[in-house]
Amino acid sequence: MNTATTTLTGTAPWRALAAHRGELEAVDLRGLFAADPGRAQRFSLSVGEWYIDYSKHRITDTTVGLLLELARACGLEARRDAMFAGDRINTTEDRAVLHTALRLPRSATLTVDGTDVVAEVHAVLDAMAGFAEKVRSGTWRGATGEPIATVVNIGIGGSDLGPAMVARALRHCADGPAVRFVANIDPADLTAQLTGLDPATTLFVVASKTFTTVETLTNATAARRWLVAALGEDAVAAHFVAVSTHASKVAEFGIDPANMFGFWDWVGGRYSVGSAIGLAVMCAIGPVRFAEFLAGMHTVDEHFATAPLEANAPVLLGLLGVWYASVLGAQSRAVLPYSQDLARLPAYLQQLTMESNGKSVRRDGTAVDHDTGEIFWGEPGTNGQHAFYQLLHQGTRLIPADFVGFAAACEDLPTRDGTGSMHQILLANMLAQAKVLAFGRTAAEVAADGTGPGLVAHKVMPGNRPSTTLLAPALTPATLGQLIALYEHQTFVQGVIWGIDSFDQWGVELGKTQALALAPALTGAADPDTGDTSTDTLVRTIRRLRRT
Amino acid sequence: MNTATTTLTGTAPWRALAAHRGELEAVDLRGLFAADPGRAQRFSLSVGEWYIDYSKHRITDTTVGLLLELARACGLEARRDAMFAGDRINTTEDRAVLHTALRLPRSATLTVDGTDVVAEVHAVLDAMAGFAEKVRSGTWRGATGEPIATVVNIGIGGSDLGPAMVARALRHCADGPAVRFVANIDPADLTAQLTGLDPATTLFVVASKTFTTVETLTNATAARRWLVAALGEDAVAAHFVAVSTHASKVAEFGIDPANMFGFWDWVGGRYSVGSAIGLAVMCAIGPVRFAEFLAGMHTVDEHFATAPLEANAPVLLGLLGVWYASVLGAQSRAVLPYSQDLARLPAYLQQLTMESNGKSVRRDGTAVDHDTGEIFWGEPGTNGQHAFYQLLHQGTRLIPADFVGFAAACEDLPTRDGTGSMHQILLANMLAQAKVLAFGRTAAEVAADGTGPGLVAHKVMPGNRPSTTLLAPALTPATLGQLIALYEHQTFVQGVIWGIDSFDQWGVELGKTQALALAPALTGAADPDTGDTSTDTLVRTIRRLRRT
Repeated sequence: MNTATTTLTGTAPWRALAAHRGELEAVDLRGLFAADPGRAQRFSLSVGEWYIDYSKHRITDTTVGLLLELARACGLEARRDAMFAGDRINTTEDRAVLHTALRLPRSATLTVDGTDVVAEVHAVLDAMAGFAEKVRSGTWRGATGEPIATVVNIGIGGSDLGPAMVARALRHCADGPAVRFVANIDPADLTAQLTGLDPATTLFVVASKTFTTVETLTNATAARRWLVAALGEDAVAAHFVAVSTHASKVAEFGIDPANMFGFWDWVGGRYSVGSAIGLAVMCAIGPVRFAEFLAGMHTVDEHFATAPLEANAPVLLGLLGVWYASVLGAQSRAVLPYSQDLARLPAYLQQLTMESNGKSVRRDGTAVDHDTGEIFWGEPGTNGQHAFYQLLHQGTRLIPADFVGFAAACEDLPTRDGTGSMHQILLANMLAQAKVLAFGRTAAEVAADGTGPGLVAHKVMPGNRPSTTLLAPALTPATLGQLIALYEHQTFVQGVIWGIDSFDQWGVELGKTQALALAPALTGAADPDTGDTSTDTLVRTIRRLRRT
Repeated sequence: MNTATTTLTGTAPWRALAAHRGELEAVDLRGLFAADPGRAQRFSLSVGEWYIDYSKHRITDTTVGLLLELARACGLEARRDAMFAGDRINTTEDRAVLHTALRLPRSATLTVDGTDVVAEVHAVLDAMAGFAEKVRSGTWRGATGEPIATVVNIGIGGSDLGPAMVARALRHCADGPAVRFVANIDPADLTAQLTGLDPATTLFVVASKTFTTVETLTNATAARRWLVAALGEDAVAAHFVAVSTHASKVAEFGIDPANMFGFWDWVGGRYSVGSAIGLAVMCAIGPVRFAEFLAGMHTVDEHFATAPLEANAPVLLGLLGVWYASVLGAQSRAVLPYSQDLARLPAYLQQLTMESNGKSVRRDGTAVDHDTGEIFWGEPGTNGQHAFYQLLHQGTRLIPADFVGFAAACEDLPTRDGTGSMHQILLANMLAQAKVLAFGRTAAEVAADGTGPGLVAHKVMPGNRPSTTLLAPALTPATLGQLIALYEHQTFVQGVIWGIDSFDQWGVELGKTQALALAPALTGAADPDTGDTSTDTLVRTIRRLRRT
């Protein structure tokens, strides 16, 4: 199965799922729960510290059984094992995929191409820890002898979203320097982030594997000018370090290669938050908490690698993703963290999932004959309730939602009357939203509440809208690491079912070269000739508007 | 047409559009541009300072003609005129919809139910300006006699997203106190925002029309405790003001009703950024720039009210939204501001559009028989290019995109070699992405570049992916106001075509009452009995996890 010439939709389990879809249209979540008191129990599981309820989905035991058959037909277990073993499963780039090795304990062994990967990983982690402790303790001094107050990470994509999301999420654990993040080539990004900073107490982490990423090197150069203007050329080495693998370019920039922290071609950018890319996070929370973060990821790695498919959380959640995205016609998934500190989780997951699975060609180069990656989007609750939830509840779209919450607050506050907990109100809202989405409110129920006939139809809540609820005791480095690994592996599962290479990103190359080609037209004097009249006119318009 | 019993899909233009859809499947954007050198010219227009190119859409003159027929069949012009006149077009709540009155010049007249609305609006604007100038000049003093350094806006939904988005966008115009925003009931939000603030120099704006919104009043009470702990009960009046209409509740909180800034029941929360809800913004940028912002909105109001439909920007953009969302099967729209300062535009538009048009019942209570509101989502470019653009380019989904850019930077920086402009590289990227989405790259073109046969399929860019490009000279209060009004009115246009009330939000009520009902179960001791086994189990799990 799943060879070059078998299409996914031609497999027996797929055909069975397509037929089964029709059967499910006759029931809804109210009916499914009414008929089956054991449903919540059966469609839930624990992994690491997380409790996951997936009972409020449009599934029955038959659905889950067929999805697991599909997974087996696609060779999921073999492919998973190949990933963990370091096989070159990123076939279009001929690379291993070993972000799981970044979180192996020091005592583990993994040899790839004759190299002890674990030893290499821990050598870099030790170097990072040594550096981070110097910065945190004040032993590391800037050019004027002052300790570092702020670390500014300059990177984009995987060199930005992971550490930025994690640094914000673990804000309450931070006991080191402040951290800021600059990514965009828009000069407003750097300008805003440098506001209020003192060059003498600012350290830049420049994160770019090749040290050639346009955005990152442009921002790094601008930051370098800002620093040099205040402290002189000789100050650079004390205020810049690199996360990169390109020692000569790093040295050319003025960074001491001893302060270059490396990684490997088997770490994709969007899977790199546990690598040296996490350096700014480690400076903020310290090596001990960073190790807890890695250990959290490793807990879920172990679960994914060893749990039987029918009790394997990333497998089940990934299969649900396939069910909605490819069979039931949902184009997106809402990510709704009931945690303000996880505000950037949706943006992080956009890269993780959409860059991985936003493809329409299979590993062998043949076209898929079904839909693939979902659009991930969302905002924290309860904020979203006052913004877009209207559409979730009463719109015409099928949008499976992931609710993410924590049983206890890191820092709680009392309610208005001084006796309650704000955090428990937050949680009550999360449960209420999932409940209303699933079970809705019928016209009869609305009318029974005394609503006049003219408004009943407007107040009906259709229900039958699916969601997963993910609950952990608290937002800690460990539970955050577990959550990230949970999404990483469900992304992998979906990619395997769809038959695509989740680890390449060929679709982003052309835009880069086209931008380089277009830049001169914007500043030049000649009539633009970009190849199409729309772009030509836009170039002329930009020139004209610049003069107004 | 469009009466209670006519469904939209039964109208002649709709049937013609459905048939026309098939005709368009035979051509793509490459073909359409090749066949028609005048296309870019014809499918573009200017409104206010914005140039809008909609030529890279899956449309022909026939498409636009049919969409305009649809608009006329739905009575768009009459409904638009009724809105501007103050008719009660929000029928389910029996209210006028007059956010456009918020930006009428002082010299205008608009009488509704015997009241001179313009005089009322400008009375509040004058009161806001008087207050803002006192804060900005340092005349307003805190309880200890110090001037205000930071204004913290406490509000949620429309009382947060609008001013938060605008304050960030106009960061470079800010010459008053710093502004921060607190919305979430999650105590982490307030805790994070109060970090580093001095109660003696902090002023809170509590924004809640009824002064009963749970999130806002809970946060305001917690902020009040924080202030009183430092400065005593008597300090409240010097550090809290309100944007509300409920004077007795405001006074009860300890706010001097003289410092309450009001609005009207004809301003919906998601349309309220031009009202007193903008007070924090006015404190930051001053009344003069705030007036420019309002004037920008008014410019587009006038255009929408008077331009013929075929040259009316909100009409054309709204009709394109209908074309994709209801006919071509797109479930979402990507908003891609090439401006880091517009980072919160997508979140703002989520509320504006999804709360307005995420409905499946028409004004008369009958069900729609077509899809309605799109999911709006996005992140600033170029950041998104390194995250989710892979899916935009090579995924299986149809996702129309709005590119938003500015010809000149507010504060530019040089490129690496010191000679170029970072902002022009930003713009080149925007043009390149729209170009690649539209025109792609064929297998023959990829092969001609020397790509080996094994990779050609992976590097093919399908193209034919639609986008609008919106360009203005610079990000100013005026152009931002124009942009917001442009989206407000296209949202209105879509709602009229779909026959729904874009100004109510009945779908958000049930979740609020359910949350109140569930809260005691989370803290209580009794066995939960919430009505479904999933929620019961989640409540038990939260209690258990709190103890771990």
